[in-house]
Amino acid sequence: MKLASLKSGRDGKLVVVSTDLAWYASADMIAPTLQAALDNWDRVETDLRNLATDLDHEVIPRERFHERLAAAPLPRAFQWADGSAYVNHVALVRQARNAEMPDSFWHDPLMYQGGSDGFLGPRDAIPLADEAWGCDLEGEVVVVTGDVPLGASREEALAAIRLVGLTNDVSLRNLIPGELAKGFGFFQSKPASAFSPVFATPDSLGDWWKDGKLHRKLMVDVNGKAFGRAEAGVDMTFDFGTLVAHAARTRKLGAGTIIGSGTVSNRGEDGGPGKPVSEGGVGYSCIAEIRTIETIRTGKPETPFLKAGDTVRIWAEDDRHHPIFGVIEQTVGG
Amino acid sequence: MKLASLKSGRDGKLVVVSTDLAWYASADMIAPTLQAALDNWDRVETDLRNLATDLDHEVIPRERFHERLAAAPLPRAFQWADGSAYVNHVALVRQARNAEMPDSFWHDPLMYQGGSDGFLGPRDAIPLADEAWGCDLEGEVVVVTGDVPLGASREEALAAIRLVGLTNDVSLRNLIPGELAKGFGFFQSKPASAFSPVFATPDSLGDWWKDGKLHRKLMVDVNGKAFGRAEAGVDMTFDFGTLVAHAARTRKLGAGTIIGSGTVSNRGEDGGPGKPVSEGGVGYSCIAEIRTIETIRTGKPETPFLKAGDTVRIWAEDDRHHPIFGVIEQTVGG
Repeated sequence: MKLASLKSGRDGKLVVVSTDLAWYASADMIAPTLQAALDNWDRVETDLRNLATDLDHEVIPRERFHERLAAAPLPRAFQWADGSAYVNHVALVRQARNAEMPDSFWHDPLMYQGGSDGFLGPRDAIPLADEAWGCDLEGEVVVVTGDVPLGASREEALAAIRLVGLTNDVSLRNLIPGELAKGFGFFQSKPASAFSPVFATPDSLGDWWKDGKLHRKLMVDVNGKAFGRAEAGVDMTFDFGTLVAHAARTRKLGAGTIIGSGTVSNRGEDGGPGKPVSEGGVGYSCIAEIRTIETIRTGKPETPFLKAGDTVRIWAEDDRHHPIFGVIEQTVGG
Repeated sequence: MKLASLKSGRDGKLVVVSTDLAWYASADMIAPTLQAALDNWDRVETDLRNLATDLDHEVIPRERFHERLAAAPLPRAFQWADGSAYVNHVALVRQARNAEMPDSFWHDPLMYQGGSDGFLGPRDAIPLADEAWGCDLEGEVVVVTGDVPLGASREEALAAIRLVGLTNDVSLRNLIPGELAKGFGFFQSKPASAFSPVFATPDSLGDWWKDGKLHRKLMVDVNGKAFGRAEAGVDMTFDFGTLVAHAARTRKLGAGTIIGSGTVSNRGEDGGPGKPVSEGGVGYSCIAEIRTIETIRTGKPETPFLKAGDTVRIWAEDDRHHPIFGVIEQTVGG
């Protein structure tokens, strides 16, 4: 089952989307918003699934689904917490800014609390008041949970995952060092994230969802060129069950909690930093990582951060190159 | 005008509370929840204020207001961000753990993104799975904002403050050093916060609300003994206008954003660490601070963190010793 929220008010209007993303049927007689559906999942899941089946069988009235009319599936949420499960990425970024990475990072997940009061839709422009802030994309996988009890095990956490999707976790790189130096984590350096037009239930992903990981390539284009083709199921040190359980260690999580993987990142063939797509590598899911590799190689970064007018595309594909969650496609500024 | 949410479902049921906190009238024909009221403030404010006036004039049906039936005014919120406006507190706590405090802390606000997916009501027990985590209270002032545009000035931010209240920002002190060492801020060390039974509009506070600060004592009792009597309007380095503007520097804030002051803390008469209430001082609004002072004085902390069965009370009073926002009164564990 695939769900989306058409732009409408602060919380959108819940729709069920066909597997091929071509059609939708309104779900508002079942639940007006995705948050309402997640709040009452046990009561509404069957009705939503029946609607999705009817839609795929073309036995109910349906309308064309246009990704440009979609808000983030949760246009605002009560929690957005982002992990750093691809520890390779963290190690590289730290290496480039000469910051040490403790060995504990390989067995204790890093996670920060993000702002969730307003997300960007998949086609919304990225607001950027000052290019000097160093605007970057971060391509990530996300899950949405139901209620998760305090102290949930990895297995309980996995069972509480309701939906899977993608995000562009926008970061203001040049604000990060100063902010992290203050010791309280990110705040101004993490403006609103954008999400894929559609979120999908884990079962609908078949073999692509296994062991708490999405086993598909994360496709990232910048300004129309292939930038990242990393395998989301590879080099993910902490699976989503572990990440959700980490978040729930000292407090329960409310339904509709969004947990992110952190920037998807693969090691190179030799175990070292990977190559750009143009050199036959899988590339990168954020600009900071290619800048890091440039710094390691030549002593200084070359690829600039995003400027007004730059475009970013993030998606994942099925075997016939059709987007699974739709496409995040954003322009900076404006 | 004073607003509260009676326990009901995930978001409570909005009520208007009389100035003396003795009575309430249901507001659900105006807005079912406080979040809904904040989402539509321009449309509902007048109706809510008229209802509050009618309630105080005893010209409408009313019911007894019992604080034990109140949830947090926002039982869950789309954003909770907590500042550290009483820089004196930060300086003391850092001094005790031999961590340096940069001078910039006196002019650039510290703020962390907190979890907002589920808050504790004013009489809810503090869930504590492990006493070794070092459970502490933190008595703070909070404001709730309407929509705040990206890049809002301090004055615009002040004008967007809809409500004022109090919080017990529960902290797990023994998890903080390890978590801050990872560099991404608090997460497991900050379980659910509790809020005062009632939030009040700034205008209803008269002279007690001035220059973006609450000019009342923050009363804190631990296990029935006076623990803190610090003046919330004194030694607050950053007023709420500055804190809200800080939060909105790189992204707009959604209606219903809660911004906290950080632990209220006053300097001692000589400018140094203050004295306990039992020694004629104003005391402290968290246990970490008295432990800090004990460490500075004698080399080691004496006051233990909270254990199962311990009680915490946090409130502010009018001139006749009546609570302004009601009383946060919590027992640990159970």
